[in-house]
Amino acid sequence: MARVPARGLADVVAASTALSDIDGQAGRLSYRGYDINDLAGVASFEEIAFLLQRGAPPGPAELTSFRDELAAGRAVGALAAGSLDGVASRQRPMEALRSLVSLGSADDPDSGSNEPAFNLRKAARLTAQQPVLIAAYHAARQGRTLPAADPGLGVAANFLLQLSGASPSVRAAEILDTCLVLHADHTMNASTFAARVCAATLADMHSAVVAALGTLSGPLHGGANEQVMLGLQTIRQAGGDPREAVARWVTERLARGEKIMGFGHRVYRTEDPRATHLRRLSGELAAASGDDTYYQMSRRMEEVVLAEKGLFPNVDVFAATVYHCRGIPTDLFTPVFSASRMAS
Amino acid sequence: MARVPARGLADVVAASTALSDIDGQAGRLSYRGYDINDLAGVASFEEIAFLLQRGAPPGPAELTSFRDELAAGRAVGALAAGSLDGVASRQRPMEALRSLVSLGSADDPDSGSNEPAFNLRKAARLTAQQPVLIAAYHAARQGRTLPAADPGLGVAANFLLQLSGASPSVRAAEILDTCLVLHADHTMNASTFAARVCAATLADMHSAVVAALGTLSGPLHGGANEQVMLGLQTIRQAGGDPREAVARWVTERLARGEKIMGFGHRVYRTEDPRATHLRRLSGELAAASGDDTYYQMSRRMEEVVLAEKGLFPNVDVFAATVYHCRGIPTDLFTPVFSASRMAS
Repeated sequence: MARVPARGLADVVAASTALSDIDGQAGRLSYRGYDINDLAGVASFEEIAFLLQRGAPPGPAELTSFRDELAAGRAVGALAAGSLDGVASRQRPMEALRSLVSLGSADDPDSGSNEPAFNLRKAARLTAQQPVLIAAYHAARQGRTLPAADPGLGVAANFLLQLSGASPSVRAAEILDTCLVLHADHTMNASTFAARVCAATLADMHSAVVAALGTLSGPLHGGANEQVMLGLQTIRQAGGDPREAVARWVTERLARGEKIMGFGHRVYRTEDPRATHLRRLSGELAAASGDDTYYQMSRRMEEVVLAEKGLFPNVDVFAATVYHCRGIPTDLFTPVFSASRMAS
Repeated sequence: MARVPARGLADVVAASTALSDIDGQAGRLSYRGYDINDLAGVASFEEIAFLLQRGAPPGPAELTSFRDELAAGRAVGALAAGSLDGVASRQRPMEALRSLVSLGSADDPDSGSNEPAFNLRKAARLTAQQPVLIAAYHAARQGRTLPAADPGLGVAANFLLQLSGASPSVRAAEILDTCLVLHADHTMNASTFAARVCAATLADMHSAVVAALGTLSGPLHGGANEQVMLGLQTIRQAGGDPREAVARWVTERLARGEKIMGFGHRVYRTEDPRATHLRRLSGELAAASGDDTYYQMSRRMEEVVLAEKGLFPNVDVFAATVYHCRGIPTDLFTPVFSASRMAS
């Protein structure tokens, strides 16, 4: 086939990835052929991580064994643990994760080889450790001891336990689990691309993940959910009717030609299927908490942006309010996203 | 222009970079329009770093000021220094640099902003610190104290001082300086690409450099000069006439369909101009040392590969022997390359 050099990468097929697939016209997302609508709320994050990393859904015995592997791989390595206090007091969350994962290669027993069996075990450990690193960072910066992990809990429930010190309700853990499933992979994007460029030189998995974490720290990529929440908080704190205030805020920003974080997507031309699930979860959490202000503000924002710009919400708008209701500090939204993406 | 999706990136114009330019047919490399043949051995690494980072060659006062800025920016930050012993004893050199640069953002006074003036200062500090981090790593793993820096010395001379503890001769420093100039930029390659993908999300400069360092650690990219030296050492240690042994080794590898590291390039269709300069320096160093075995082996390797495969040496073959003659440990070749590339 004749090749016409294209300037920029927008229309270039950079890779075939079997991990996930997007149909932007139809608003469909699938992981290894399974529609996200059939997975969300049904399959656990552990099942999805197994599916993405090993190519097929786990059987019951495989799933038990994988859960055990993840629980056993949670411990933070000695080199990273030794730097934790300094990192937590001196680096922002994504910088800290970049440093801790980079240091972590020293304590991974498989870090000497790039062979597939070694890489599968490294991927499982990285998946297991990422939420623990976030909770450990948060505890260290608050001068608290990290609450002990519970080997009987899955990734989502254990994260909430280690983040807050209290056992989460079953439904709270289920909702975070669904969020992790919805964020686990999204074909080719900037952080995945940086990781693949890195891995293509046969660099080790920790280098590829560190490259992805650094890329995800950019406000144009991973920082959007945090920006959404900060926007909602600023508008609410300014007082007045929150729904009117948010409508005015959106209209004024659009009039100045500014972007509204959380809306529009380079691929989807209809609603991002992940937004549909996250909107539902956000509504459920708002009703249960007795304060649906942020949920109502997000809905109003959605109405105004659709009316004025024809843009649909992407994954970030309702992820922000779900994470907020789960008690996750705003500056840890992107780290939690990274914990999910580690599955792929 | 109509766009035809291309599979793979080989023929895709991914970016226009004003930093450097390659004419693969003519075997020309230029930095910001200056031919490398006019720079090598003439301009110092500091002048080239200024040219690449700030867009134009420095005037005399600018150069003095930039040298002072680099000398003042050499100190390793407290967070990285606190992890140095652990990193040096538990991580391989490129992993260690990845960790130390990631930790280093905490101590960069400009790390809070991505604005151009801040980024120029960060770039200067990263350029100044990279060789110091390598020397500090090497000292720590040997249980030695890092020799004090000499603020009167340039980057190359100070690196040799801090690596070995002894002041280098003027010519030794000049030769390493020329190597750093030759390696300072090479348009778009895997590590630069990873850094640009990362930076395109507005991630900070430390994240982009960490992504590049991880990518450079891959044996298909940054590891080639180390592989060349290890190959030469293995062949020499096996005994017999070194020139005959190397010819036999090359012929046998090629017969098995294996690659010879250090030969061929995706862009150059004639000799890489950097190889021409490095061959000359390698010959000079060999003659001065009284042992030209590795130089003669490289020359013979070059003859056989050209005759059998029509491939020219790339930058790695003679860089290996030059670094070796400069007393740089083989596993620090790629780190030294990274110190040079930090200029761009």
